[in-house]
This record gives sequence, structure tokens and C-alpha cells, in this order.
Amino acid sequence: MAGDGSDQRALQYEQTLMYGRYTQELGVYAKEEAARLRESGQKRSISERSRTLDLLEYKGRCAKCRICTVRCQKFLISRVGEDWIFLILLGLVMALVSWVVDFCIAICLQAQKWMYGGLDSNVFLQYLAWVTYPVVLITFSAGFTQILAPQAVGSGIPEMKTILRGVVLKEYLTFKTFVAKVIGLTCALGSGMPLGKEGPFVHIASLCAALLSKFMSLFGGIYENESRNTEMLAAACAVGVGCCFAAPIGGVLFSIEVTSTFFAVRNYWRGFFAATFSAFIFRVLAVWNRDEETITALFKTRFRLDFPFDLQELPAFAVIGIASGFGGALFVYLNRLIVQFIRKQKTINKFLMKKRLLYPTLVTLLISTLTFPPGFGQFMAGKLTQGETLVTLLDNRTWAKQGIAEEFDYIGNSQAWKHPQVNIFVTLVIFIIMKFWMSALATTIPVPCGAFMPVFVIGAAFGRLVGECMAAWFPDGIHSDESIYPIVPGGYAVVGAAALSGAVTHTVSTAVIVFELTGQISHILPVMIAVILANAVAQSLQPSLYDSIIRIKKLPYLPELGWGHHEKYNIRVEDIMVRDVRYITLNCCYRDLHNVLISGQLKTLALVESAESMILLGSIERAQLQSLLSQQLSRSRRMDYIRERAAAEKKCLSDLSNSDSEDGHQRASQEVRFQISTEESTFSPTCPASQKPLKPALKRPSVVERPTKLPTSPQDHSGIALKNLFCSSPDVEALEKNNNMETSVSPEQRRPSKRVRISIVDDGDVEDDMTLREIAEWEERQLDEQVDFNNCKIDPAPFQLVERTSLHKTHTIFSLLGLDHAYVTSIGRLIGVVSLKELRKAIEGSVTVKGVKVRPPLASFRDSGTSSSETEATELHKLWDRHRSVSLPGEQPTSESDEKTQ
Amino acid sequence: MAGDGSDQRALQYEQTLMYGRYTQELGVYAKEEAARLRESGQKRSISERSRTLDLLEYKGRCAKCRICTVRCQKFLISRVGEDWIFLILLGLVMALVSWVVDFCIAICLQAQKWMYGGLDSNVFLQYLAWVTYPVVLITFSAGFTQILAPQAVGSGIPEMKTILRGVVLKEYLTFKTFVAKVIGLTCALGSGMPLGKEGPFVHIASLCAALLSKFMSLFGGIYENESRNTEMLAAACAVGVGCCFAAPIGGVLFSIEVTSTFFAVRNYWRGFFAATFSAFIFRVLAVWNRDEETITALFKTRFRLDFPFDLQELPAFAVIGIASGFGGALFVYLNRLIVQFIRKQKTINKFLMKKRLLYPTLVTLLISTLTFPPGFGQFMAGKLTQGETLVTLLDNRTWAKQGIAEEFDYIGNSQAWKHPQVNIFVTLVIFIIMKFWMSALATTIPVPCGAFMPVFVIGAAFGRLVGECMAAWFPDGIHSDESIYPIVPGGYAVVGAAALSGAVTHTVSTAVIVFELTGQISHILPVMIAVILANAVAQSLQPSLYDSIIRIKKLPYLPELGWGHHEKYNIRVEDIMVRDVRYITLNCCYRDLHNVLISGQLKTLALVESAESMILLGSIERAQLQSLLSQQLSRSRRMDYIRERAAAEKKCLSDLSNSDSEDGHQRASQEVRFQISTEESTFSPTCPASQKPLKPALKRPSVVERPTKLPTSPQDHSGIALKNLFCSSPDVEALEKNNNMETSVSPEQRRPSKRVRISIVDDGDVEDDMTLREIAEWEERQLDEQVDFNNCKIDPAPFQLVERTSLHKTHTIFSLLGLDHAYVTSIGRLIGVVSLKELRKAIEGSVTVKGVKVRPPLASFRDSGTSSSETEATELHKLWDRHRSVSLPGEQPTSESDEKTQ
Repeated sequence: MAGDGSDQRALQYEQTLMYGRYTQELGVYAKEEAARLRESGQKRSISERSRTLDLLEYKGRCAKCRICTVRCQKFLISRVGEDWIFLILLGLVMALVSWVVDFCIAICLQAQKWMYGGLDSNVFLQYLAWVTYPVVLITFSAGFTQILAPQAVGSGIPEMKTILRGVVLKEYLTFKTFVAKVIGLTCALGSGMPLGKEGPFVHIASLCAALLSKFMSLFGGIYENESRNTEMLAAACAVGVGCCFAAPIGGVLFSIEVTSTFFAVRNYWRGFFAATFSAFIFRVLAVWNRDEETITALFKTRFRLDFPFDLQELPAFAVIGIASGFGGALFVYLNRLIVQFIRKQKTINKFLMKKRLLYPTLVTLLISTLTFPPGFGQFMAGKLTQGETLVTLLDNRTWAKQGIAEEFDYIGNSQAWKHPQVNIFVTLVIFIIMKFWMSALATTIPVPCGAFMPVFVIGAAFGRLVGECMAAWFPDGIHSDESIYPIVPGGYAVVGAAALSGAVTHTVSTAVIVFELTGQISHILPVMIAVILANAVAQSLQPSLYDSIIRIKKLPYLPELGWGHHEKYNIRVEDIMVRDVRYITLNCCYRDLHNVLISGQLKTLALVESAESMILLGSIERAQLQSLLSQQLSRSRRMDYIRERAAAEKKCLSDLSNSDSEDGHQRASQEVRFQISTEESTFSPTCPASQKPLKPALKRPSVVERPTKLPTSPQDHSGIALKNLFCSSPDVEALEKNNNMETSVSPEQRRPSKRVRISIVDDGDVEDDMTLREIAEWEERQLDEQVDFNNCKIDPAPFQLVERTSLHKTHTIFSLLGLDHAYVTSIGRLIGVVSLKELRKAIEGSVTVKGVKVRPPLASFRDSGTSSSETEATELHKLWDRHRSVSLPGEQPTSESDEKTQ
Repeated sequence: MAGDGSDQRALQYEQTLMYGRYTQELGVYAKEEAARLRESGQKRSISERSRTLDLLEYKGRCAKCRICTVRCQKFLISRVGEDWIFLILLGLVMALVSWVVDFCIAICLQAQKWMYGGLDSNVFLQYLAWVTYPVVLITFSAGFTQILAPQAVGSGIPEMKTILRGVVLKEYLTFKTFVAKVIGLTCALGSGMPLGKEGPFVHIASLCAALLSKFMSLFGGIYENESRNTEMLAAACAVGVGCCFAAPIGGVLFSIEVTSTFFAVRNYWRGFFAATFSAFIFRVLAVWNRDEETITALFKTRFRLDFPFDLQELPAFAVIGIASGFGGALFVYLNRLIVQFIRKQKTINKFLMKKRLLYPTLVTLLISTLTFPPGFGQFMAGKLTQGETLVTLLDNRTWAKQGIAEEFDYIGNSQAWKHPQVNIFVTLVIFIIMKFWMSALATTIPVPCGAFMPVFVIGAAFGRLVGECMAAWFPDGIHSDESIYPIVPGGYAVVGAAALSGAVTHTVSTAVIVFELTGQISHILPVMIAVILANAVAQSLQPSLYDSIIRIKKLPYLPELGWGHHEKYNIRVEDIMVRDVRYITLNCCYRDLHNVLISGQLKTLALVESAESMILLGSIERAQLQSLLSQQLSRSRRMDYIRERAAAEKKCLSDLSNSDSEDGHQRASQEVRFQISTEESTFSPTCPASQKPLKPALKRPSVVERPTKLPTSPQDHSGIALKNLFCSSPDVEALEKNNNMETSVSPEQRRPSKRVRISIVDDGDVEDDMTLREIAEWEERQLDEQVDFNNCKIDPAPFQLVERTSLHKTHTIFSLLGLDHAYVTSIGRLIGVVSLKELRKAIEGSVTVKGVKVRPPLASFRDSGTSSSETEATELHKLWDRHRSVSLPGEQPTSESDEKTQ
């Protein structure tokens, strides 16, 4: 998988992710590659398994030791369960990774401080040290990531969301990406830029799960089950958040909210288990390293327990929530604006495309210049790292005591907030404004980075600001009774952090993360209220940051149905379906196939009984049909024909009487055998990796007959032949892709078909003496033959909808089952097709029903930024598709596959 | 709905819930009633809406005021969204209910204490007062509940789980149940028995949501959408837990874990919003009532923050977790054992059936006698209420200081734990053992009650016990450094409470509930570890308490697939499907229909093209077919026939030439009209409530023709007629039941068909002069006619599976889409059917594949208790079904429906 993608990677490198520049081909490309990847992956796992078996069976060197190991393993598996072992391993590895990354980041940040501190004699040298250090780290991170694996850029949550939706994104779960992400992230965070660790950790955990899954599949068992892998990926996302913040509960919930539409409750369990274990190990490592005395929260607070807040403070918390909602929406908007601005400015774009590392360098230079502590940084606590900033913001002491702010002794890091000339309020305001755009800008740098933590810190600062204001206005607290409970601004900071990060990510579980991060749950109601209000505001204005990135990247994801917008219920499938379905009939000839492949664009084609009845029998993948067609016109078949012709001529000379009947007899006896073997044969031209030439020693002269010339008229024995023909296809079982057909066929059974082909090639002593005209004639004749569907996988039950199914229901079914398209039938007759594209359009409001444009009332602002590029993209998409479909199934691929089989 | 069920209620009263006595008919019965309820509900909502419209349009008394209200309402709805208003209302109402219930319970408990305290001169009087009070309350609660609504008995979570699975349980969501549940619960908890409030509150919140939904549907809008109602029920469950414990996050998570298999993340949002609002109001009420100074946790703890626990204490926490796992499994087992014991003992059973209130009385008497404080209660802190017990157990002081326990001053309620002669450890052990069986026994009393809180308290006591032991063993704490951190037994109590309640309910979210209840999250890792271990142990031994009750009650619910048991993947649908499918063909005659109905048992029947092709066209509900058949043999049709015969005789006398052609002409002109109206006509004999006789004034003489004699040979115009015939059926759209057909048909359109029937009856001046033999002959002739499917709803796309679909996938699809059954097809041809029953059997391990019984390794103990009764039940089930199907579609129901239409 890593090998055969190298040629595409160069292309992809151009297409993706360069300072947030994503073209829409990625989505299409990813989809195209999905099937291929899946197929080759399955094959590889089989071959690997058989290899392992060979190893176990035949190499008897340390057989006893081996047997013992296998027994132990079996015992463990049967007793403890494979899932458990997997989850424990995953938790352990991720905790170690998280701890090591944190450790390295801490060292990097310390080194910067040390350099900066050592050079305090000369401000210019100090500035140089302060600025050069992050620039070098970020540039290295950007360069390293782009060279090794450009997929590692960014947060990774949007991609995980898409992958968990059922779409396989190529190269997003490889070892290279893992290395690039971990090292890139460490360097990026070590630079001290306002970047986060959470998003990338979700991706890293998923990578880890995928790699671990592959590793454990070496030992056999259930690790090849693809549905299980998806479940494990969901658990891995929870682990990622869990070990990043030592927040197991919040991690599980955040990962659910961010990645899933429908969630299987049984996964919940797995997530909890793995995330708890991971968080535990992560914190235990800190204890063992003597950083902590015992296991406590990451940013522990010490707020008053007996009277955390007054009931009359709640309006202030609500204000924080609403303001954070607007702020969160603004952040998402700003982030998208920056990406789109750079993308649209052609001249900047071109220049930056050439000098790829210039953009990160410039952005880093700008940000680090502004935070330079003796410069502008003194007004915004520039010398504190992100973690230190957060600790000071969550402090339980009040900074400003109504004019007597000077009296307060700022101990430790809190001193950075104190400025001799400037008020603490001004410092906070400057910090919030500067960090806001800095974070939005910094997250567009093409390094592995998240936006959660920066946003969290900004929210905390905002909350602190409100809290300090409240403390200044009510120095003795609001409570009217005899007891005085002063206001705790740290509590406001907690509320603000949860609210702003909730608004940006559209999640409620940031509340839980906050509790776990601070180790205190006393502010539960203010936090919940603020988070909910922030979400309500932000959701009505902008998509979440992750959805925004999904749109920018044009990832194949289905948007959510707005809730409460019941006018959507009035749209039916018949309103949005494509009526002009490309289909093939059971008794069509190869010419029809050719025409359909040229004109169509869809990935799968419907198979109907006949053009009159239109009764839907199943669906066939485009690649299958292409291989059918190219096989029919392949050089080997032509050579076969030439050989046959020659043989016929010879036979015609020797004896004319009884050859035909015998030949038919012999062929019939081999039919059964071939019906088994050809189901698994891999003639597909899109799968060259698995077609290694076997040794001539394996050749068997008994099977020299043409394996593809099985009963060519399926109408005659449509009863039996059709039934054999319908084998379970992996694409239909999109929900659970454990391809059982593959597992039941041993490698022994698969060999004959390969041998056959090779023997044909080896026997190619007949010369290709056909002229071009003869070839064209021969091909014309071939195209008029009826298609033999025996060699291709047909999905016998593609998902069907009725024409009156509502949009809401369609959306639910598509999300639940992870569908890509569904056929619309009426009494078994095919009348249309709906794909994700149509559904997405309908949901995004570009379909009008009865003259009214269907769109949620508040979403007008929300869509204005993307709608123009959306239509543009669709047009491009169509053009591209047309180009592809025209070039593929004609003469050229035939010769291509010809060359490969030889 | 409330009216037509009164006859059945008497029956149900016998069948259900009497001291935990549930017969398996309930499940079947519930399913039968489901369709009926749904249908009548829809009709009622339509009629109600039309009534509201009438009110708004025609009654112009205070029109201005009305218009203003409507406008305000529309404004609110468009701006704020109906969902929001609904959720806020729900939260508000539930918070009030919860607070009022708590208030009443507190008063009840205070009254008991006051009585007990006032009579301290005489121990016997004291005993009488102590015992009589709870006996009276429980007996009243049991009696009241059983008279008003026996559905209110028990926790309600199992029923909600089943309802959210898609099965409509009759009478579980009515106003009567609401009243019975609230009052019954208040009395039951006021008695001081070890009963809980959580489960019933989930039910009460759902009841509240259902009633509110009905109420708001008076104002029109989306409140009739059934999928929305299900979503709101899911949110309501969260509200129930949230306002019971003031735990919004834990409430949402617990309700998800307990009720859902697949969870839509968009519901998550709703749940959070409503639960937070509800919890907020609930706690604000306490502040306003001066119970609390500000909003804090319900059972606030004050543990040390800086060093909550040592790393070396973790093994002790793990031990609590594992022991709680065994304890939880034992509790579920004990609870089931008690129910089954009483059910099996025929003599006890008969006696208790007669004296229904005896069982609650006896149990209460036993328990309250044992807790009598001067008696045995002194060894188990008997005089404390459940809440007080919990507060003392979560105390942050250590009770036993290594032998010097006497020195500790037990202030307040903690004094109850102190006994002059007996050690504190003995007291705790006695408390745990006694409360354990008492709680298991008490939850079988037929009153509204839950088991969560008692289990929670027992868990806390167990944790306390371990904590006190640890404190006694390590008086200066474990930590080896200079600083001394003594062990906090209260923290152990928190861990124990979470672990045991998690084990009994099979949930992880009890951890979150514990944090929210205590207001401290410092023990997050020990709690998580203990809860996960407890779950792991309990899940491998026993089903959860709710699943156990589902099994006992035989509710139609699909069990979970065990995780990690991948051998299940080897079962295919073809292994478990029923091959002998009852089907009807498109051109069958009524006799076939009759035979199929007599022999079959399934709720829906497959419609295939012909017995040869077996191509599946759709499915028809049994009730629809029964109505078709009974209609064909109905008295009115016979009267029609007599009238026609008489007319024909007359006409034959007057003129013989042109009568036939004209009749045909007239009939044809009415065809179109009837095709609309008859789709909605309700001839079903199972739906008598909606067939109220209309006034004769509505009679129209123009439509006296037979409405059912539409084109009887669908083969002739199978192209068009078949298409008209296929309308969207509500049953198939189990996922989302917004029946659009119903909403689009106005009452105006529905009237004609009713008028027709009545006009026939009114015109019944022809005498029924047929002899019995003539009738039989006539019926024989009728049975030979071809079935006209125009009058019945056909589901055109019943869910189909392929024969090689794996069990795992089937289970996923069934759970995701809430299916009841699915057809197994092969290339469009029907080859089998799988229903929930087969699936359940396969999962529970009664299907053997390749000689190996498929069953999770640890489940042998788990199933032993139920397997015998299971098979027995299935046999009974079959018998009962056969009896039913034989008696229904023959002569008797025909005459029955005859009588009703007259």
C-alpha cells in the first residue's frame, strides 16, 4: 500500500494541503482510490496470513517455543478477548507517545527560554534568538511533513470524521503519516506558536490504531474485519483526546461529538476503557518522572468548594456564553477567510507555491515578532508559554482589587500579566485580540497542528476579563447575606474556556473536558449554561471549524440536517433524484457496455433485467465493467483467437468429423472448476500490484483452455448460472466489510486462474500476424458479443428507496448505513438514483421545491462564503469526470492491461 | 385511546406486574396493540387538528386575541424553534415535578421520624408507628397504581428501552400512567423503603414529553412527526435522570447507555440542553426555598484537593471494582430469583393473586421490622433515611482510627453508625448484607420504584468499609515521603457507589453521575478504573438489571451482540432464516388468503409476483389482509348481492337488453374517486374505536354503488393499477414514521368511504332471506374470486437482506433501523424471512452452526436461569398464536365486523 502509491503521492503533493490549499479533486480521488485500496489490502492480508501459516507449519527450527507462544496467545485471546488486548496496547502506546511529545515540547520551550534569558545583555540578539528559534522549528516541521507525508498537515479531525463516515482516504492511515505527524507536531508545538495538540492527537491515535490493527492481523484472528477496524478507530479518537488532556470522559464525548453522526453505544464502552487506561498511564508517567506527587488534573484549580458562585452571577456567565458564541463563529469565519484570501490572490498564490516554506516562515516571523517580550509582547504576557498562560488564567486569586491592583503580589508567572504603566484589563484585552487573529492565522500553517488549545486559552482570557470586571464592580461579592463570598475570576476563566472552545468545535463536551482538566466540577451549571448558549449562537452563524475545513478541503462528507427546520420534511426523494440512470441490461452486448462507460460518471452501474421491465437486479462497480470490457478486447484473447484459428485450420486439415463434440465435452467438465476459481481471479487493470508473475514451474498443461469462455449466454441457464454469478460483493456491505468469500477461498484454490493466464502467455508461440484493420474488425465482432457477467462481482441488493421517501429519512439512512448512493425503485423497477452529491445539494438548500428555496433562516450568512466556490467546484468536477471517463475505457487501457499481463 | 383500552386493561391487570409476575403474553399483546394504537393515534391527531382549525376559523368570539396569540406563537416558533420551546417546557415541568416529589417525600419521612420520636416512652407503640406507617403508604401506593394504571409499576427504564427501540407499548405513555407513577412513587419513597427515584423519573419524563407533545400538537406544527417524538423521548430520558440527581451530563450519558443501541449525535444536544435547564431549575428551587445558600451538588463532599489519593491505593480501588462487579451480578440474579420463585410456587402464587395487596404489605412489614432502630436496626443505622445514610457514608472524616474508634466524636447523623458494643466494621458489614437482599426484595414490590439509589447506597457502604479498613491498616497514609496524607474513606465510598451501581446497570456513566452528585471530580481515575472493572465482571456474568427485567417481562427487545465474540461472524442469515415463508401472490384468490391467514403467524405477509417467479413485490400487514377477507365475506356485501339479485330480477322483467353495459359504465366513472378514498378507509375489525356511526344527514344517495367492487383483475392493468395501489405504508418506515399520506388526506376526502358503508346499511330495506346453505355457497363463490389489492396498503420496499449477510451485520441493521423483520432475497426472489425472534435466538446461542453451539464462553452461567423458561415460553407463544390465527379470520370475525358496521 505504501509502495504503489508513490507515483500518486507526487501528484497529491501538488494538489493538497499546501498552506491550506486544497482542490476538490482530493475528494474524488480519495473515493476512487478507496475501492482499490480496500481490494489490495484484503488480498495482501490473505497472502500475509498464508505466509504466517507457512512459517508456523513448515519451519520447525524452534517449533516448541513457537507452539508455546501460540498457545499462550490463544489462551489470552480466548480468556481476555482480543479487543481488550488491542485497547490496552493502544492506550499504552498513545500514553507513551503523548508523554514523550509533551516532554520534547517542554524541552524545546525551555531551550528557547534559556536562550532568550542568556542573551539579556543585548536586545537585538535576544530578538534574533526569540524569532529564529520558532522560525527554524516551524520551517523544519513544514518541510519535513511535506516531504514525508503531506497528509499529516492540519488537525486530522475532519479527515477522521470522513473516514468514520465510511470513505477510505488514501494514505491517511499509514506509518509515514504517523512519523510525519508525531515529529512535525512536536516541532510545531515546540516553537511556541499558538497551536494545539488535540486534533493531531486524534489523528495520531487513529494512525496508531490502524497500524496496531495491521500488526496484530499478522497473528490472525478478527483483525481483518473492517467493521471492527472502524469501531476501533472510533475508540482511538477517544484515546487521542483522552491521553492529550488526561480527560477520559471528556475525550470519549468529544470524539463522539466531533466524528460521529450515529454512534453505536457498544463503542462507547471501548472508548471509555481505552481512554481511561491511556489517561492513567499518561499521568502515572508524570508521577514516575517526579513531575507530580500523585495523579491529579493537568491544570488543577483550587476554587472555593462551599460557595463556588452566587446565583446572581449567572447572567454574567450567560453573557460569556453568548459572546463566546459570536467569537467562536468569528474565529471559524476568519480562519476560512484567510485560507480563501490566499487561495484567490493569484500572484501571492503562485509565488507561495514556488517557495513552499516561505508562508510558514513569514507567519511565524510575524507572530513571534509581535510576542517578543521586551517589545509588544510585554502588553500581552508574551513570555509565557501556552500552558503557563492557562495556569495563570485559572488562578483562584483576584488580580484587580478595585483600583488597588498594585497591592497584589504577582508571584511566579502571574507577574507577566502585570505591567507598570498599563492596567490589567488592557493587558487582557490586547492579549485576547492579538491571540485571536494569531491563532486563526497560525492554524493555516501547513504543519500538524490543532486549534483547540489556542481557542481554549483565548476563552479563558476572555472569561478572566469578565471575572476581573465583576470582581472590580462587586469587591465583596454579590451575596446580600452576612457572609462575604468574593467573586472568583478563575471560575469565569473556566467558563470562558469551555464556552469558546465549545463554540468553535460545536461541542458540548468541552464542559466535561474543562472539569477533567481543572479537577473541579463545582462550576458545572455556569459552564453548562455558557457552553449551551455559545453553541446555540455559533451553530446558527457558522459551521464548526472541522466542518469548515471539510468544506474547504471538499472532503466527501454529508452535512448535518439542521434541526428544527421541518420544512425539509417536504422534500421527497423523487424531487432530488437523478432520473437519467445509467444502467446495463442482463442481455446487453459489450458495445452497450462501452457506450455506457463512456457516457456515465457514476462509480457503480445498475443492472436491470431488461430495458422494458427495468427490474433492478443489482449493481456492478465501474471498475468491474471496465475490466470485463478490457478483458474482452485484450491482446491475450486475441492471441487465443489467432491460436484457435490456427488450430482450427490444422484440425480442419487432419480430421473434420468429431473434434467439435469432444472439445465441448472437455470444456463442460472444466466448467465447475472455473466457476469457483474465476470468481476470485483478478483481471482488474486497476490492481497491478497483486499480479506478480508466477514461476513457470507451476505451469500445468491440463488447464490450457480459455478460462473466460464460460457459458456466454446467461439467458439459457439463467436459473443456475445467475445464482452462481451473484456473489457477495464488498462494496454493498459498506456497513461491515468482512469479505467472507475471500476467507473461505484458500490460496490453493486461487492459483489455477493465474496459472491459466500465465500458461497462455507462455504458450504464446503464435505470432500476432493480424493487421490493424483485422484487429479493428475482430474488436467490432467482440463488441457485438453478449456480455458474460460471470466474471464480475455483482452486488445483489444495492440499497433501494421508494420515490416518496422523505429527505429526512434519506439523510438518516445514508448517515446510518454510510451509503454512497441508493437506487430509487417503484415496485422493483428502477426509476432513479440518489447519491451523496444530490443529497448534499438538497440539504445545503440549492434545490427549490414549490418555488421556495429550502434553507434554514439563519444560515444565509453561513453559506455566503462558500456557495460560489461550491457551484464552481461542481462544474469542474463534472468536467474532470467526463475527461476521465472518455479516456479510460477505450483502446488505450486495453493495451495497457495487455502489457501488464504479459 | 384511554377509552377503548378499558376492556383490555382488566385482562392486562391479571397478566402483568403483580408482584413482579409478568407473563409472556404482554410482549405479544403489546406488539399487537402497537399497530392499532399508532393508527388510531394518527387519526385522532388529524381529527384534533381539524377541530382546532375549526375553532380558529369559525368561532370569531375573541378573534383578535386569538390572532394575536397565533402571531406571537408563530414568531416565537420561527425565531426560537419549536424544539427549544418544547425542551424548555419539558425541563421546567420535570424540575417542578422532581422538586415537588422530593418535597413530599421529605415531609413523609419527617412525619415518620416525628411519630417515632414522639412515642419514645413505649417501645411497642414506637414499633407499631414505625411499621404501620410504611405499610400503609406502600399498600396505598400499590393499590392506587394497580387501580389507576398498572403500567406505572416498576422502574420504567426497560419499557422506555423497548419504546425507543421502535415498539409502541400500549398505555405506557398516557396521562393516567403519569398520575399513577408520580403519586405512587411519592408514597413508595415516602415510606422509607430501600427504593429509588431514578428509573421512575426516566419514565415520568418520557410520559411528560409524550403528553407535552400531544398538548403542543394542538397548536399544529411538527408535533405529529413520529420520528421527532422518538427523539424527544430520548431527550426526555436524559431530563429524567438529570433532574433527579441534578446531574445533567451524567443524566444524558446514563440515559444513552441505558436506552439506546445506536445514538444519533444530534439528540445528544437536545438532551444536554433540556437536562441542564431542568437540573438548573431543580437546584434553583432549592435555593429559593432556602434549603441551600447557592447552587451546589446534591451530596456535596469536601475531600482533600491537593492529594486526593495515593498511587499505591489504586489496588484497593481495583478490588472494590472487581468485588462490586460480582456484587452487581449477584444483585441482578437475586432479584430475578425472587420473581421466579414466587411465580413458580403455585400455591403461594394463587393465594397472592387473590389478595393482591398482601405481598407488598408482607414485604414492607418484614423490611421495616428489621430496620426498627431499637431492634435489629441499631446494628445497621436503621433510623437514617436513604439520603442521610449516603451523606454520612460520603463523609470526609475517618470513622475508625485503629482501635481508638471511641475517641472520634460522631456528630449529627454519623452517630447512628456508632454502637456501644459493636465495632464500626461489623455495623457496615451488617448494613451491606441486610440492605442487599432487602433492596433486591423491595424492588419486586408492585409500586413505581427504581433500584439505582439503593444499590448506590450499598456500594457506598461497601466502599466505606474498604476505606475504613485501609485507614485502619495505614493510619498515616501510604505515602513514604515526609508529608503525611491520611487515607480518605469517603473517597472509597464514592468509588464503591459508582462501581456497584455501574455493575448493576451495566453503565460507565455512573462515574459521571457520582462526580455531579458529590461535586468533586478529584477521584476520577479510581472511579473510572473501578467502574470499568465492575462492568467487565458484571457483564460477563449477568445481563443488566434492565435487560433482566426485559427478559422477565418478555418485552420485544433485541439483545446486544456480545463484543469480542467474533465466532458470531460465522453465522449467516441463511443459517437462521425461516425458509417456509408465508406469501401471497398477486393473482391469488381469497381462498388462498384465507388459508395463509389460518396457517401463518407473522404480522406481515410477503407479496410476490407469482409462486413460480417468487419476485418480491412488497409486504402487506396481516390486519390489512384480514380486513380484505372479512370485507369480501361481509354481511353488507351479501346484502348488496341480494339487492343486486333482486334488482337484476326486476330489470330482467322490465328490460333485458342494455342494463349490463350501463352499469359497467357507471362503475368505471367512479373508479378514480374510490381509489383515493378507499386507501384511507378503515374496515379493520381490530379498530372499532374509530368507526363511529355518522349522522344520516351526511348520507348522499349518489354513492350507493359497491365501493369494494373495483377492477378485480389486477393482471389486466397491472401497469397502472399496481402503481396506484402501492402507497407508502407506515410500518415500513419504522425508522421515521411521519405518515405523509395521512396528513395530505383531509377529513373531507376520507368521508365518502364511510358514507358509502352507512348508506348501504341505511338502504338495507332488502331482507336477508338467504338460508345458511345459500350463505355458505355464496361464501364459497366469494372465496374463489381473485383478490383485489387496491383496498389495502402495501409496503413497496420491505427491508431485504441477501442470504450471505452475516449475523453481525443483520443485527446492526435491525438495531439501526429498528426493524421487526426482513425478507431474505436472492436476485429479487424471496427465499426466506428473518424476524427479531430468529435473530434473538441466534444471538442467545440456541442456533448451532457446524455442530458447535455458538455462545460466549462466560455466558453459560448467565443463561442457565432463563433458558428453560425461554423455550417453554416459545412453545406457549406458538400455541397461543395458533389459537388466535385459527379463531380470527373465519366466520366469526366476519359477523363481528358486520355487527359493528351496522
